[in-house]
Amino acid sequence: MRKLRVAAAQVGGIQPDETRTEVVGRLLDLMERAAGAGCRLVVFPELTLTTFFPRYFLEDISSADTYFETALPGPETRPLFDASRRLGIGFHLGYAELVREGDRNRRFNTAILVDGGEIIGKYRKVHLPGHADHLPEAPFQHLEKRYFEVGDLGFPVWKAFGGVFGMCICNDRRWPETYRVLGLQGVEMIVLGYNTPEVNIHHREPAHLRMFHHRLSLQAGAYQNATWVVAAAKCGVEDGSRLIAGSAIVSPNGEIVAESAGEGDELIVADCDLDVGTDLKRHVFDFARHRRTEHYGLITERTAPVLPD
Amino acid sequence: MRKLRVAAAQVGGIQPDETRTEVVGRLLDLMERAAGAGCRLVVFPELTLTTFFPRYFLEDISSADTYFETALPGPETRPLFDASRRLGIGFHLGYAELVREGDRNRRFNTAILVDGGEIIGKYRKVHLPGHADHLPEAPFQHLEKRYFEVGDLGFPVWKAFGGVFGMCICNDRRWPETYRVLGLQGVEMIVLGYNTPEVNIHHREPAHLRMFHHRLSLQAGAYQNATWVVAAAKCGVEDGSRLIAGSAIVSPNGEIVAESAGEGDELIVADCDLDVGTDLKRHVFDFARHRRTEHYGLITERTAPVLPD
Repeated sequence: MRKLRVAAAQVGGIQPDETRTEVVGRLLDLMERAAGAGCRLVVFPELTLTTFFPRYFLEDISSADTYFETALPGPETRPLFDASRRLGIGFHLGYAELVREGDRNRRFNTAILVDGGEIIGKYRKVHLPGHADHLPEAPFQHLEKRYFEVGDLGFPVWKAFGGVFGMCICNDRRWPETYRVLGLQGVEMIVLGYNTPEVNIHHREPAHLRMFHHRLSLQAGAYQNATWVVAAAKCGVEDGSRLIAGSAIVSPNGEIVAESAGEGDELIVADCDLDVGTDLKRHVFDFARHRRTEHYGLITERTAPVLPD
Repeated sequence: MRKLRVAAAQVGGIQPDETRTEVVGRLLDLMERAAGAGCRLVVFPELTLTTFFPRYFLEDISSADTYFETALPGPETRPLFDASRRLGIGFHLGYAELVREGDRNRRFNTAILVDGGEIIGKYRKVHLPGHADHLPEAPFQHLEKRYFEVGDLGFPVWKAFGGVFGMCICNDRRWPETYRVLGLQGVEMIVLGYNTPEVNIHHREPAHLRMFHHRLSLQAGAYQNATWVVAAAKCGVEDGSRLIAGSAIVSPNGEIVAESAGEGDELIVADCDLDVGTDLKRHVFDFARHRRTEHYGLITERTAPVLPD
């Protein structure tokens, strides 16, 4: 048994006029509660430091740069790193990353893994959802394809907290490739955050499906790779738009062992035995004995479906 | 809307002394009921024609040849093909296939798709579960790796019944690669059968997980590829060993729209609109816009996990 006590720190709505310092204050409170509960790691959501700005169309994307971080830690976020060191707790945090490369500004939807106050891993979101162009008819925008570049770091893993860790972000969790690439590196815990609008702007669908698909994706990814999955929501109402809650800790059997009850700031905690997936990995999902890569070629050869004649 | 009325024909336990003719009689009854209910297609289980013989260890595997078909249709199975033609109903059937190639006997866990009494598609199981050697300590055997070769036909699709069809068999359903390879060919309905022992002989686990993992796998595969999935169980007690039931028809949203109630011969029916997945395929799962194959390389490059240093 390799026990790791972990928290998912759900964060309620962040309004456009809320300052970084105010948000960081909320996160520090959650981190202190997690440390007080004996957690070694606390998982914060995607784009945690501001309101979910891809809902706004801005003609000039640099007008959105106020939502981005050019350095982490920066003056307003340093207290999170200091608290990590002081409290002996690691954290995962999603944020909008602005990188200046010469004359060029590059923007990513990024997450970091921190331990002892130091960044030990960085991931940039690969599966950007939504659209790049203004949709004036939609009730709100989902312009991640406008504001961010596709992540260029792949899906790495890190040895940390006594196990093998991976990260992904929000829409990545709907894609089985995300979990499988991590699974093929022996991942034991995947941490992620999300901002998922309650309403699908692209097509009408029954409202309950948003939460159902969220849970289904986490649970299948966990089971099929025999890994823990810890997912933290930014949720509730932001500037009149509502995001789903449902922060969850999922075991390698695919079962939800902890789930948030509300849609505000909330901590959920679980004692995760990193060895729970070992039997599955040795038998049903012994990849060495069962996977047949000679029949999987299309997964990497082909991006989009080709229909039969 | 492209409506297709489909049945999954669950088949209760088949005892070792039951003849092919007796079994085919049960299948004909189910097929006639499906046709009477207006179905265009009925899905039978995996290895439908005999008891699940991989539970038995036989020193000489050719001693098991009595469980295999050397021709389909053969004398005992021809009535199924005749009924398909007469009733205007297609069927999917799993069986043990023995192929004589010169001096060599090849054995596969196979399924066919039949319409108008003619075989229009064949699939051979790729993900063979279990083990190849006798496990004398186990309560029963799961010797699929002994009795069958790995399928050599890949995961093809066929235009049939007004849509794009794919097949897989039993353990294939636990592997996201199965659904994705089919999804990359525009599959709209995946049909499959299974024989899933109620007890996991490889390691102790809570009994409810068998059914949970079965449903989770079907539901995730359906949702993540926006396809219907129709799964038929051979189930109940066979020669003292129990197999799970849970035959199900799953929509492209991942929801179970019909599920068996018992563990005997039973028909479940659903009116499947093959267009239900269209919106998902155009937006959330618009593979052309969202998949990033440049980050999926490990899925085909690597069979087994490689852990970080």
